[in-house]
Amino acid sequence: MNILDIIAKKRDKKELTKEEIEFFVKGYTDGSITDYQASALVMAIYINGMNEREITDLTLSMAYSGDVLDLSSIGEVVDKHSTGGVGDKITLILMPIVASLGIPVAKMSGRGLGFTGGTVDKLESIPGYNTNVPVDEFIQNVKKIGISLIGQTLNLAPADKKLYALRDTISCTESIPLIASSIMSKKIASGANKIVIDVTCGSGAFMKDVESAKELARVMTKIGELAHKETKCVITDMNEPVGYAVGNTLEVIEAIDILKGKYLPKDIKHIITELGANMLVLANKAGNLEEGKAKILENLQNGKGYEKFVELVQNQGGDISFIENTDKFAKAKYIIPIIAEKSGNIVKLDALNVGKLSVYLGAGRMKKEDDIQKEVGFIFHKKVGDKVEKGDVLGYIHSNDEEKAKQVLKSQIYEIM
Amino acid sequence: MNILDIIAKKRDKKELTKEEIEFFVKGYTDGSITDYQASALVMAIYINGMNEREITDLTLSMAYSGDVLDLSSIGEVVDKHSTGGVGDKITLILMPIVASLGIPVAKMSGRGLGFTGGTVDKLESIPGYNTNVPVDEFIQNVKKIGISLIGQTLNLAPADKKLYALRDTISCTESIPLIASSIMSKKIASGANKIVIDVTCGSGAFMKDVESAKELARVMTKIGELAHKETKCVITDMNEPVGYAVGNTLEVIEAIDILKGKYLPKDIKHIITELGANMLVLANKAGNLEEGKAKILENLQNGKGYEKFVELVQNQGGDISFIENTDKFAKAKYIIPIIAEKSGNIVKLDALNVGKLSVYLGAGRMKKEDDIQKEVGFIFHKKVGDKVEKGDVLGYIHSNDEEKAKQVLKSQIYEIM
Repeated sequence: MNILDIIAKKRDKKELTKEEIEFFVKGYTDGSITDYQASALVMAIYINGMNEREITDLTLSMAYSGDVLDLSSIGEVVDKHSTGGVGDKITLILMPIVASLGIPVAKMSGRGLGFTGGTVDKLESIPGYNTNVPVDEFIQNVKKIGISLIGQTLNLAPADKKLYALRDTISCTESIPLIASSIMSKKIASGANKIVIDVTCGSGAFMKDVESAKELARVMTKIGELAHKETKCVITDMNEPVGYAVGNTLEVIEAIDILKGKYLPKDIKHIITELGANMLVLANKAGNLEEGKAKILENLQNGKGYEKFVELVQNQGGDISFIENTDKFAKAKYIIPIIAEKSGNIVKLDALNVGKLSVYLGAGRMKKEDDIQKEVGFIFHKKVGDKVEKGDVLGYIHSNDEEKAKQVLKSQIYEIM
Repeated sequence: MNILDIIAKKRDKKELTKEEIEFFVKGYTDGSITDYQASALVMAIYINGMNEREITDLTLSMAYSGDVLDLSSIGEVVDKHSTGGVGDKITLILMPIVASLGIPVAKMSGRGLGFTGGTVDKLESIPGYNTNVPVDEFIQNVKKIGISLIGQTLNLAPADKKLYALRDTISCTESIPLIASSIMSKKIASGANKIVIDVTCGSGAFMKDVESAKELARVMTKIGELAHKETKCVITDMNEPVGYAVGNTLEVIEAIDILKGKYLPKDIKHIITELGANMLVLANKAGNLEEGKAKILENLQNGKGYEKFVELVQNQGGDISFIENTDKFAKAKYIIPIIAEKSGNIVKLDALNVGKLSVYLGAGRMKKEDDIQKEVGFIFHKKVGDKVEKGDVLGYIHSNDEEKAKQVLKSQIYEIM
C-alpha cells in the first residue's frame, strides 16, 4: 500500500478501503506521510466527499491514533458535546444537573480558539479549580461525586489534532466528512459510550445554515450507529450569543446564577432541556424526552444541580466562596454601558460579531499560545425581539483597556429597527 | 490577497484572477506559501480544472518566476520540444538540419528522469562536448554557427521546478492544465518566439491515449496564442521506442548514422519531417508543410544536416573523431542477443517496458542524484509489424552487468504472434 495510490483513488472519486484510511492516519500521525501529501488527500476528500463507511473508518482510525480513555470502571458514560459558539456555558449548567440525576459525568474539555470559547478557560476563572488532573484521579473523582470536568490531560486523537491544524491552513475546515470525523473521533477517544451533540447553527457556529447543520447531524448520528456509540444530535440556534454573558468569568457567573435559580434565559432553558432529556433517555434515566425535560428542570429548580456544581468545584480544589458570592470575582477595569441610539425592536445581536469583539477585548485567543483576560467580555440586557427605548442601557462592555472598549462601542453591536 | 481565499476559490470551482495566480506562483517560489498549501491548490486545480485564460496566466507567472533567456539579439527563434519518450533522439537529428536551413537553434535541454531520456545526457556521451556554457557564450555560439545545444545553465522557471517535483509526490502529474503550463513556461523562459511541440502519445509517454494528447495539444496551442508565442503541436506515436536504439551513447550513434544517410527509420522520418516542416513554416522558410518536409529531407540527404552537427560538436569542444568514426565510442561489457523464441509477427515492443528496463540496466535515473551508464541500453533489429523466424536475432542488450542482462532477457521484451 502506498500514499500515492490512496491520493489518486480519492482524487478520482473512488471509495477508500478501511485499510487505506488506517494506512493514511497511521502514516500521517507518525510523520511518514508528509503534510503536503495529507493536504492533497484532504482537498480530494473535501471536493469528492466520503461515504458513511469511509467517514466512520476515518473517525475510528483517528480515535485510536493516540490514548483512548477507558471509563468502563465508571459504568455507562453519556457524553455531551457542542460544535461551538459564543456565550456557550451549557456544560457548566447542564453537566452538574445530569450528574445530580445519576448520570456519571467524566468530561475532558478544550480551550477556546478564535471566537469560540472553551470550557477549560471558563473553569479556570474559578480560583483554585484544577483542570490538569491525572487520569486515575479524574476517574476517582467521578466515582466519588459523580462528576469531574477537566482539560485534555491525555494525548487524545493526535491524528485529528494534526489534521485539524492542517485543514485550517488549506481552506478545508467546512467539510462535513472532516468535521464529523473530527468531533466523533475525539468523543470516542475520550471514552464515551453514548453521545449527545449540540449542533450549533448560525453566524457564530461552524454551520451557518440549517441544511448543513442537519447534514452534519445526520452524518454524526450515522457514525455513532456504525461505530456502536449511540449518538443523538440536537440542532440549536447560534445566530445570537447564548444567554446574556460572553467572556470567561462573566459566563461562569451567569452559569452560577442560573444554577442558583436567579433567572433562566429562554435559549438556555431550551438547550439544557433538549440536550439533557436526550442524555437521560440514552442513559435509561427517563422513559421519553418529555419526562427527561421535566427532570432537568426539576433538578435545576430544587437546587440539586447547584449543589452538585458546588461539590464539583470543591472536589477540583476550587474556592467555593466565589460560587457562594460571585461578587468576589475580579472585575474588568472599565465597565461601559451600551446605550440605545433609537427606539424600536432589536433585530440583530450577531454572535460572530460579538465573538470577534470579545477576542479583540482579550477574552479569546487567535493563536493557541495567546494569553486571555478572564474578566473581560459583555453582559447583554437585551436580546433579539426585545423592545427598547432610545437611551436604554442595552448591556455593558467589560474591558481592561478603555480605548478598546470605545472602539467596540463604536462598532454596531445591536441592530434596532 | 491571501492564499486561503485563493485555495477556497479553486476548491469551489471558481475562476482565479491573473493577480491571484501570480500571488500564488510568487509566494510558492519565495517560500512564503508552504508546500502543503500549494499541494491543496494543485489538487483543487487537478479536480476542478482551469480555463485557458487561467492556464495561460499560470504559464506566464511560472515562466517569469526566474531567469528569462533573452534571445532577441539572435533573431526569431523557433524552438522545438518533445513531451518525452523512449529512444527519442529527434533533437540531435532535426536541430542540425533546421540550423542548416537557416533557423537559428539556441536550445537548453534537460537531463533524463525516470524512463524518459534527456538530450543533455546524450550530448555528454560525446567526449569533450561541453553542455555547461555561460549564456553569453551560448548566444555567441548561435550567432557564429547558427546552433548551440546545451544544458539548463540558467534558473529557468523555478516555480515550475518546485511544482513539478511536488506534483510527483501527491499523484497530480497527469493533469492537462498542469502539464501544459509546465511545458510552456519552460519554453517561454528559454526565450523562444515560436514553438513546435512533439506531443508524444502511447505507453512510453505521459499521454497514454490520443484523446488526452489532442487535448494537451489544443491547450498548449491556445496558451501559445494567448501568450503571443505561436505554437504548433504534432502528435506522434510513443507505443514503441523511437528508432532502433535506446540508451545514451547508442542513441547518439544512431543519430549520427541517420545524419550520415546510412538509414532512416520510418518513425524518425515521419517525426523529423512533421516537426521540421512546422518549424520551417513558422520561421517563414517554407511556404507550406509539403515544401517544408521536402527541405528537411533534402538537407538530410545532401549531408548539410550532418555537416552542421559536426560543426556543432566541434564548436562545443567535442571530439569530432568520434562522430567521424562511431566505433571509437566505449561499448558496454556485455552485448547479448535477444533471440526469437517462435516464428510470427512482432505485435508489441512496449516503449514503457523498454524504458523501465533501460533504467534497470543503468541508462537512466530514478532520482535526480543517480549516476547513469552512458553505454548501456538496447539495439533493436526488429520492430512492430516485422515478420520473424524462430531463432532470429531481434536485437541486443548492452549491459555492464551480466546478471542484469540475463534478467532483462528473461522479461518479455517482444511479443510475437
